[in-house]
Amino acid sequence: MKNVGYYNGEIAALEELKIPALDRAVYFGDGVYDVAFIHNRKPVALKDHLDRFFNSCKLLKIEIDKTYEEMEEIFNTIIEHADKDEKDFILYWQMSRGTALRNHIFPECKKPSLFAYITPKKIGDQSKKVKLLTQEDNRFYLCNIKTINLIPNVLASEAAKQAGCDEAILHRGDIVTEGSHTSTIIIKDGKVITHPLSNLILPSITRKHVLEICRENNIPCEERQFTLDELFGADEIMIASTTTVLLAADEIDGKKAGGKNPELVKRLQTLYFEKYGLNA
Amino acid sequence: MKNVGYYNGEIAALEELKIPALDRAVYFGDGVYDVAFIHNRKPVALKDHLDRFFNSCKLLKIEIDKTYEEMEEIFNTIIEHADKDEKDFILYWQMSRGTALRNHIFPECKKPSLFAYITPKKIGDQSKKVKLLTQEDNRFYLCNIKTINLIPNVLASEAAKQAGCDEAILHRGDIVTEGSHTSTIIIKDGKVITHPLSNLILPSITRKHVLEICRENNIPCEERQFTLDELFGADEIMIASTTTVLLAADEIDGKKAGGKNPELVKRLQTLYFEKYGLNA
Repeated sequence: MKNVGYYNGEIAALEELKIPALDRAVYFGDGVYDVAFIHNRKPVALKDHLDRFFNSCKLLKIEIDKTYEEMEEIFNTIIEHADKDEKDFILYWQMSRGTALRNHIFPECKKPSLFAYITPKKIGDQSKKVKLLTQEDNRFYLCNIKTINLIPNVLASEAAKQAGCDEAILHRGDIVTEGSHTSTIIIKDGKVITHPLSNLILPSITRKHVLEICRENNIPCEERQFTLDELFGADEIMIASTTTVLLAADEIDGKKAGGKNPELVKRLQTLYFEKYGLNA
Repeated sequence: MKNVGYYNGEIAALEELKIPALDRAVYFGDGVYDVAFIHNRKPVALKDHLDRFFNSCKLLKIEIDKTYEEMEEIFNTIIEHADKDEKDFILYWQMSRGTALRNHIFPECKKPSLFAYITPKKIGDQSKKVKLLTQEDNRFYLCNIKTINLIPNVLASEAAKQAGCDEAILHRGDIVTEGSHTSTIIIKDGKVITHPLSNLILPSITRKHVLEICRENNIPCEERQFTLDELFGADEIMIASTTTVLLAADEIDGKKAGGKNPELVKRLQTLYFEKYGLNA
């Protein structure tokens, strides 16, 4: 199979996979998810992703009924069903609060549902430059939980696409938070700067890895809020995610941006690829 | 069938109905919904609900591929499949942006999916008093669209239940917005007061009907923001929704509330039941 789907123990071609209409994901978006990269048929930094996933479940009070080992076993089973000539994939999985007649309060039967899939995907060329569009951040105040309530992210992504851009950068008033599906990291005067962890941003794994790499290599970094003016005036603006890794921008809101510290961008990308074995 | 389900032309027992895992409702909550009451096997105020539903689709840029008449025809087909001895139901329907591989931007194939169902339901005794719990409103700024991104509503409802209450009343800082799944309407000195329409509240059909009834019967009413203090000091606090209709509270945050103008509550309920033929 090219795209392999999984739902509560059943494996099927993703395009054929069906789930109960009464899964609470369907009518409340009542679930959490995570995404990992599979390189050479092995998940990359899986523990980090499972840590975040289990934390998302905890914050949303979804009583996860599986261990890390059981999750990994399921992922391996899914990978085994993929075409043998494919080595690299996106692994997506989500857990909903389970299947029940629609009622806002939690269902009595606490049996969460697990939906997962893989699709072939190579990590893109890191020398690619992206174009960005700023958008007001109108999301809820639970952005630290990786939930499937993603309408504002969908609308911001589509607005970016309509403007000929690759990603939307969100801001609450004057404060830049993050992208619609990536973290936002800027470089100014040799320092790497990104929004601190709070309920306003997702605890991105790539953001965490980039900060770890900075600290391991004595690259100055700071987790603090920064303004739209700082964004526009940054030496480099980067977007970061599991599937994007780390791409620098050359344009924001139709104006030229970044490009003033390509050496540091390249250094971070190189250190990242080395640390996570993505060159092999 | 007791609970009749529908998905893109297929009818099945709701508990057996399945939908594609790649419906964007499943992984983005990328859809809108509406709920109407069916009395004597006929939808009540269906035009109001379809007006709101079509507007929700428009605001979310979902290109609905059906007319009012086609929607009504589908609902009638669903009702025909219900057990003949049942006369009153909840009718729920939702439209997602369609089925596609996961990607935040809108799919190229603009074919939305329609999921709908009915379940038997009688409107409850309107003399019942409800208990309320106040909760900070942490929702997104798209509350005027009736979307299926409902995690904050789910969490607030569950918090209310855990506190032994029937509903959570949400407030942004000091300003009361609405309930987790009902509108909030207060009475003070003979005047009916409720939050004005904006992106902070859902345009509730029952709220609209109550305001219409006030204007038709010279009952003073006002659409304006009000504070938590005004909520606690109100003569009556009422929750309103299609399935609840209009219930008064006797307790909020564990303290005695309302009960100072039961005549006006009763008058509004009576006028409502008369206007919408719910006594028959």
